[in-house]
Formats: sequence, structure tokens, C-alpha cells
Amino acid sequence: MKILIIGGGGMVGQKLAHNLARTGKLNNQAIKEITLADAFAPPALSTPASFEISLVTADITNADIASSLISNKPDVIFHLAAVVSGEAEANFEKGYSVNLDGMRNILEAIRLTGNGYKPRLVFTSSVAVYGGPYPDVIDDDFQLQPRTSYGIQKAMSELLLNDYSRRGFVDGVGLRLPTICVRPGKPNKAASGLFSNILREPLVGIEAVLPASKSATNIFASPRSAVGFLLNAATLDTAPLGDRRSMMMPGVWGTVGDEIDALRRVAGDKIVALIKHEPDPAVEKMLSNWNFPNFSTDRAKALGFRCESTLDEIIQVHIDDELGGKIPGLNT
Amino acid sequence: MKILIIGGGGMVGQKLAHNLARTGKLNNQAIKEITLADAFAPPALSTPASFEISLVTADITNADIASSLISNKPDVIFHLAAVVSGEAEANFEKGYSVNLDGMRNILEAIRLTGNGYKPRLVFTSSVAVYGGPYPDVIDDDFQLQPRTSYGIQKAMSELLLNDYSRRGFVDGVGLRLPTICVRPGKPNKAASGLFSNILREPLVGIEAVLPASKSATNIFASPRSAVGFLLNAATLDTAPLGDRRSMMMPGVWGTVGDEIDALRRVAGDKIVALIKHEPDPAVEKMLSNWNFPNFSTDRAKALGFRCESTLDEIIQVHIDDELGGKIPGLNT
Repeated sequence: MKILIIGGGGMVGQKLAHNLARTGKLNNQAIKEITLADAFAPPALSTPASFEISLVTADITNADIASSLISNKPDVIFHLAAVVSGEAEANFEKGYSVNLDGMRNILEAIRLTGNGYKPRLVFTSSVAVYGGPYPDVIDDDFQLQPRTSYGIQKAMSELLLNDYSRRGFVDGVGLRLPTICVRPGKPNKAASGLFSNILREPLVGIEAVLPASKSATNIFASPRSAVGFLLNAATLDTAPLGDRRSMMMPGVWGTVGDEIDALRRVAGDKIVALIKHEPDPAVEKMLSNWNFPNFSTDRAKALGFRCESTLDEIIQVHIDDELGGKIPGLNT
Repeated sequence: MKILIIGGGGMVGQKLAHNLARTGKLNNQAIKEITLADAFAPPALSTPASFEISLVTADITNADIASSLISNKPDVIFHLAAVVSGEAEANFEKGYSVNLDGMRNILEAIRLTGNGYKPRLVFTSSVAVYGGPYPDVIDDDFQLQPRTSYGIQKAMSELLLNDYSRRGFVDGVGLRLPTICVRPGKPNKAASGLFSNILREPLVGIEAVLPASKSATNIFASPRSAVGFLLNAATLDTAPLGDRRSMMMPGVWGTVGDEIDALRRVAGDKIVALIKHEPDPAVEKMLSNWNFPNFSTDRAKALGFRCESTLDEIIQVHIDDELGGKIPGLNT
């Protein structure tokens, strides 16, 4: 079992690699090799592994480089690399280059390998493929009319994944990820970053700016759940997917106000007091495109995708996985 | 008013050009110049025009050539060029190259012109963007999950048109055309060609093979209606479209059996007897992806798009526009 993680230097890619290094198996098969590829040099794993882990700096917007990543015919490919939403909106060309051309280069590299090579390709799409106006509940048949360049690029990539899978070139699974929360580390350029910032920073005693209204909604899953989604997508039977290879992952729906209430229950008033409300019209405009209702996610649930049930649980996962079970902000 | 018709050598492009040459105006503005561009040398128009008509052979899969088409900054661009459904399925690379890269090259050429250049771009999408299973009626919010490469390429192009319009680079309108019927001339490689063949050939006294079941369904509009759609799309106020620039055009729904019944009413038993039923499993498989129910087309109707009401009318339009009002097959 050879595994390639494109975007292996990112937060989710690293957590996935740590998980695979720890278990040494995928789908009950021993892992022989993992390649972590990213546009920058991926960090080496601190988790010891019983197999080789290669770190590769690779620009997938270059077709030859994308092809070189596939040359050892990995059995499972996770394609997690993306220019995030805020950056794709700010830098039109870079967004299309990485998010669309990068995906196409990977699919073409696989197709042109031929000789029966048909890897499982797990692609991280996004809840951003949806655009309003919304019904009360978004079901699995809701149209994809994204209203951001990032969402457009992800929706186009999903269509490619469907066609390459239908034609038998690849065995694709696309995951429309909820907003991953609490996202550890520094804020990135994703417009959805604020939903993590207002939890992560106060938990360690740092003030966080809330640039949006408390009524802003989103759908959330923890990084731990994201890794679970990827592992399930890598191993599930794809026959039930038919020609529609992507689906919305389960998540916990809530408003910013719900997040703050959960933070109060888990960590108390002192932590919540570190959130400073400073509305930013540009952020609010972008979020208004995403003012998501709840999602049914029936297809994903039937295929065994699982996540947390409450925002409290999501915050607790962060405390357990990132903060050693403690809330440092209580001691500052 | 300068007009560019990409795909200007094709059947619909030629009819559109004839119409514009005859009226000399678009949106009450005098036409100064029309360029007909196609992958092959477009035929010169027989209709005299009061303005210059340029004929250009241009391969839009080449970004520089696509750019050269835009260099004189046409006010209205009709992008009708496509590799049709059957060919896009048979030739994977050609389909993506023309239908996706060609569209993107045109959009990029427009965007990179800059300096406030923002032409109206009328793009012919297709009913093939839909894929089953279908509800009883497909409304304007029905999801796009095409199950052919052609449909995927058209759906991706629609997403690009939305994004380039939203970002202010172009003023796009996408028309999901019904099956154009009766299509004059020789059969092309579109899988939908059979719906025209079984009408066109018998009307001139030639046998036609019906390779599909009489229960196969489709939605139809005449070439004359197609030209009307394009003219309306070139002149309508796009503000009501918001960020969703494409919509299903009205059409007449019917089965192959309905077509044959209409042919009998319009032309009689002798003509109908020229249809020979020889089922072809490959054709039936492709058609099963398109087993369309009816469409509501509310958005299009509200914006003034109109077509025939019955299959009888559609056949009569063919007799009037292509056969001089007579049915030659009755005299053979």
C-alpha cells in the first residue's frame, strides 16, 4: 500500500499522516510508503513510522511535476492542496491555477498512466460549493451554484472527478468538508478562519477579534473528524456513489453566538471575555454568501461518515488534541 | 456594434448571421461588423449585408488565437462552438480541449483585455448539463450532475461564466439549449441527431433509421427559435440573472413516438413509412442518461425567451424555412 498526500504539509495532511504513521495500516493493508507533497517543503513527522515517509516539494500547477508525483503509482491519493477561499477571491489567477489546473493535472497524470492504473483519489471539496438562496435544509440533491471563485473551482473539480471516475480512469471520492474547527496554529487566509480564531485564541489567553455578526452561521467538524472522513473515504465501497462522487460531510451547525455559548460552557466567562467584536463589512459580505442552513448529509451518514454532535464536543477535541487536556487561558 | 460569432460556420451560427445581416441591427443599434469564426473556414453568407462580414478560421483551443479573436473588442460575442456530445464521449481529450479550454481561453482573453472591456457573452450550454435520476418536472433549481463528458464540460463552462460575470470581467448569459430540431443538413455526431434525422430524411423522401425506442424522450426547439434565444440573450437586461447566468430554454417536450405522430399529422402516412426501427443498444444507453421529463423554464420565460408550442409547429417551421413550404417526399 503506497499513499500520496498532496497538501501533505498542511494542517489536515499532517494530522492524516500522523494517524497513518501510528496505525501503519489502511484498509487492513500494511502501508509501505507515504509521500507528503506540498508547494512548500512539508515538515517531517514526529510520529515514528515502520515505513518510509518521503517529503516532496511539488508545484501541481506544473503538469510534469504533477505527473512525477504519480510515477510510483500510489494506491491511494489524498488531494488536499488548495488555495483557500479568501486568497482565491483576492488572487483570481492563483486560485484557478492551483484549485482547478492542479486538480486537472493530477487527474490527467493518472489517466495518462494507463495500463489499468486506477487509484482511489480522495479529494477535499468544500461546503463553499453551495451558494444561496438556501432552503431550510440543504439535502444531497441541492444545486451547486457557488458565489465565490473558490467555490466555483471546487465545484468544477467535483465535476471533473465525476467524469474521470465514470470513464474508469480513477476511483474518486469527493468530500465537501464543513468548516474545520477548531483549526490549530496561526490563522490562514480562509474567510472561514474567524470561526476558529474566536475559540482558539481565547483558550490560550489571547484576545481574538470577531469581525462578523453573532448571527453568522456555519457548519463545523473538528480536525480529528476531518481525518476520520479521509480515512473512511479511502476505504469505503464506492459502488453506491454511482456517477456522483462528492457529497457533503456531516457537521455541527451553529451560529457564532452558539460557538460563544459553547465556549462559555466549556471554558467559562473569563475566556469568552477575550473575544472582541469589531464588525468588518468586507468579511460580513463574504459570509453572507455562506449563510448556511443545516444540512441533511444522508449520503455521507449512510456511508459511515461521522463527526461530533455538539460545539462543546468540538471545543473539547481541540483542548484534548492540541492543548494536552488543559485550558492555558485560565491561568493567564 | 461589433459582433463576433464563434462557431459561426455551424448551422445555428450561420442562421444567426443571416438574421443579423438581414436586419442590420442588434438591440436597436446598427451593426458595423460581424466576424464569423470557426475551426474550419466558415461559409460566406448569401444574405447581402450593409456592413463588413469577416470569415476567420480560428482554433480556440490555442490561447493566442482565442485572444486574437477578441482584439477588436467586439461588443457582443456569441460562443456557439463545441465538440458535440457523441464526439466528446468518443474523444475525451478533444472534448475537454474545445469545450472547456476553448471557453476558458475566450474568457481569459476578455479578462486580460481589461481597460473596462466587458462584452456581452452569449454562451450555448445544453440540456445535457442535467443527469438523472429526474423529478417529474425539472425546475430552474435542479442540480447539475451530468452523466456525459459533454454535459460535464458544459456545466463547468457555466460555472466559469458565472464567476467571470460575478467578478465583472464579462456580462455573460448561458442558454441551456433544448435539442435543436429539425436540424437541417447532414447528420452530425451529436447523439441527439436521431431526433432530427427521423423527421428530416422522410420529408424529402429518404429512409431514416430510428436506433432508439419510441419511448425515448427529449425536449425540442426549432433552429428559428434557437436564433430567437440568442438574439434575446444578446439584448436582455442581465441584472435579474444575479450570479446564476445560465438557464434552461423553453422547448417542446415529447417522445420519439410523439415526433412520429406529429410527422403523420403534418405529412401523412407515406412519409412516416420511411422511418425504419433498428434499435442500437449503444444509442439507447446514451439516451437513457437523458430521459428527460418536462422542464418548467420559468426563469427563461420571465426573461422573454419563446419557442414553439407543439411538435407539429416545429416540423412546419422546418418545411417553411428549409423546404420552401413544400414536402418533397410526397412526390417521390
